[in-house]
Amino acid sequence: MGERGLRLGLVGLGTIGTGVVRLLQSQGPAIAQRLGTPLELVRIADVDLERDRAVALDAYALTRDWREVVADPDIDLVIELIGGTGVARDVVLAALAARKDVVTANKALLSVHGPELFASAAENGVDIAFEASVAGTIPVLRALREGLCADRIEAVHGIVNGTCNFILSEMDAGGDPYAACLKRAQELGYAEADPTLDVSGSDSAQKLAILLGLALGVHLDPADLPTEGIERVSPIDMEFARQFGLRIKLLAMAKEHEGAVEARVGPTMIPASSVLAGVAGAMNAVEVRGRHSGPTLYYGAGAGALPTASAVLGDVMELGRNRRLGISGRVPPLGTPSLRETRLRSPEEIEAEYYLRFAVLDKPGVLASITGVLGNLGISIASVVQPERHASEAVPVVIMTHRAREASVQRARARIETLGEVRERAQLIRIEREL
Amino acid sequence: MGERGLRLGLVGLGTIGTGVVRLLQSQGPAIAQRLGTPLELVRIADVDLERDRAVALDAYALTRDWREVVADPDIDLVIELIGGTGVARDVVLAALAARKDVVTANKALLSVHGPELFASAAENGVDIAFEASVAGTIPVLRALREGLCADRIEAVHGIVNGTCNFILSEMDAGGDPYAACLKRAQELGYAEADPTLDVSGSDSAQKLAILLGLALGVHLDPADLPTEGIERVSPIDMEFARQFGLRIKLLAMAKEHEGAVEARVGPTMIPASSVLAGVAGAMNAVEVRGRHSGPTLYYGAGAGALPTASAVLGDVMELGRNRRLGISGRVPPLGTPSLRETRLRSPEEIEAEYYLRFAVLDKPGVLASITGVLGNLGISIASVVQPERHASEAVPVVIMTHRAREASVQRARARIETLGEVRERAQLIRIEREL
Repeated sequence: MGERGLRLGLVGLGTIGTGVVRLLQSQGPAIAQRLGTPLELVRIADVDLERDRAVALDAYALTRDWREVVADPDIDLVIELIGGTGVARDVVLAALAARKDVVTANKALLSVHGPELFASAAENGVDIAFEASVAGTIPVLRALREGLCADRIEAVHGIVNGTCNFILSEMDAGGDPYAACLKRAQELGYAEADPTLDVSGSDSAQKLAILLGLALGVHLDPADLPTEGIERVSPIDMEFARQFGLRIKLLAMAKEHEGAVEARVGPTMIPASSVLAGVAGAMNAVEVRGRHSGPTLYYGAGAGALPTASAVLGDVMELGRNRRLGISGRVPPLGTPSLRETRLRSPEEIEAEYYLRFAVLDKPGVLASITGVLGNLGISIASVVQPERHASEAVPVVIMTHRAREASVQRARARIETLGEVRERAQLIRIEREL
Repeated sequence: MGERGLRLGLVGLGTIGTGVVRLLQSQGPAIAQRLGTPLELVRIADVDLERDRAVALDAYALTRDWREVVADPDIDLVIELIGGTGVARDVVLAALAARKDVVTANKALLSVHGPELFASAAENGVDIAFEASVAGTIPVLRALREGLCADRIEAVHGIVNGTCNFILSEMDAGGDPYAACLKRAQELGYAEADPTLDVSGSDSAQKLAILLGLALGVHLDPADLPTEGIERVSPIDMEFARQFGLRIKLLAMAKEHEGAVEARVGPTMIPASSVLAGVAGAMNAVEVRGRHSGPTLYYGAGAGALPTASAVLGDVMELGRNRRLGISGRVPPLGTPSLRETRLRSPEEIEAEYYLRFAVLDKPGVLASITGVLGNLGISIASVVQPERHASEAVPVVIMTHRAREASVQRARARIETLGEVRERAQLIRIEREL
């Protein structure tokens, strides 16, 4: 580096990429002062060079071919912001092989190919950083890797998808159904035209896989993590939750157990008084429970061009410091030099409290049938709520269970759905009180 | 280091020091695995070697003389946990001069002598780390120094004293007066026998001085920061706050302005819906507002032996990595190589909304006198609440102002206190809505 600054190449000039350019332009002098050397963006690659991005690009060499960025011997560090696991993987591996440091915000890539990329970085004596891949601007990966590294992390609970949290917050505040709130999220730019990746929970599962590495030191494929989206959450469920002092959030959670890990993404009822329950709108938060540090929580913007760009450039500065000092691999990317072997807990092993809602025809004996099924499967009932009585339409019946095996609760739900008086699919939501 | 581990000396075997020993004993193997080298505690110094600390100390060389720790050529890193600015300063300076890294949790020392200690560390080619000095276990200093370093921080608002937050939470929950809640805090071990340092706000001011360095890049002496404690907060004020959708917290706050910094510690009314308002009991939280990253918040245990020890050992691991790589000064201790010159905003420049409570004899015309004084000083009133009417006793009158100059509000309060119908000292609490 020496007299010249740290030279950057950027691959992907979408929302976040444009944010990185803007932030470099406005914060450049302050960053140079802090870092002791300027950041110089040299080349940018994107397939679309026509679109007006409302940012001056004259100072940079633009190309449609990412290979020109990676091959440029002048470039020290490549920022990968195209997303996905195809071309992005080629970009990152090529950059590492060319002994360039890499900063990426790509949770899909890291959650699936993390170990391969980390091994390549180590082999080539360079670094890869990815703070922006989980919870946007919030430096929670750094907190896990370096702040809490002396402790044993026992659990992580995160609201890591702003789109889902926005939709659930809107449903909770106004009582509007899912579809209307999704539409509002799309109009406001919080949800994509095709929102599947977000609302299905898949995006959260990718982030959870990264958190599993950093918090619990294990690698699990995001496709293997039990994942449920928010599409079936109804304002009725939110109302019932409220009656019990609970709120519904889409949580990505992981817990350490003896010889196994519990991990899932799904709508979850949590105490209304918990800090996570207060996380509203498109914000993200991650609560970490350490054996000795206790609960700590990290809150902030999980998306957005400039908040995410702030995390990207924080990583760029870290790798710039390393390069200046001539070091790499200061901290292992996941905080530990080797991940532990583990397995996922099965529904037979998982115990929790559950919320069940059935739509039933209000005939004599229906409650007896339902509670009978639960009793036969050894599920103890904490409360039953049957708010209205109508002769002909289906009415909701809500059951709150005591701690029960998840497999038994799923079995009970399936059996109850076969009862003649039960209409529609039942709703099943897990309750987490330890937040 | 090489084959042998990182050798540690500990000065101060009080609550946190004992926590460090316990955490090293339980987490030692896991830390060695993560760090790639074991942490070996060699020597411990404390003036009291008789007290039973319920932890095995046989493996360590014990001494009453801290100089033996600092002089031990085998020791790589000294952990200073005696507190205060006298002997602690000698310990830290001697350790740095002996080219040992230093980890400390000493906010008093850092807030006053920080620049001297940082300069000494740089001169001697070693590092000093102090994550545990602010907000205990929460890695918020690391977040500011390395996570948000690409952004410009515009404001910080923190609940950084668990004792005060516990007392205020108790008052708020049960309506008991300050003295009773302080007593409860003392019985539960949340407050010292002499609670002055905590309840006066001085401890928070020391932590604020450190946050000012990391967040805004300025050095201000904690003694110069306007500081008010919680002793005069009454459950009545909490009730009124609640009526306006607000809560009272002891906040340490700093804001960047053109050419000046606003900083203060004091009871503050904040929106009940804000995340900070939900921080209950002895917990701490710091909200950081970045120009591009937006608000981020860091929450967790601000005190306690093991939570604080977790932060101390996180720092030890960081400095161990540096030593193994043969580097020091990777990041400046306050994130910037040079602090900016600045000045504190005066009450003439500060504008905010304020809550005023007077105890008045309910005679005709008293409200006219009070509002007259406010009007003459250009203070615009948002609401007046005068809840009860009694013939002879003093009754509360509450005024919520619109944005007004702090100096004017203080002048108004002083003038109103001289009115014949006004009894006792008035209560004046600032309102912060942007949280």
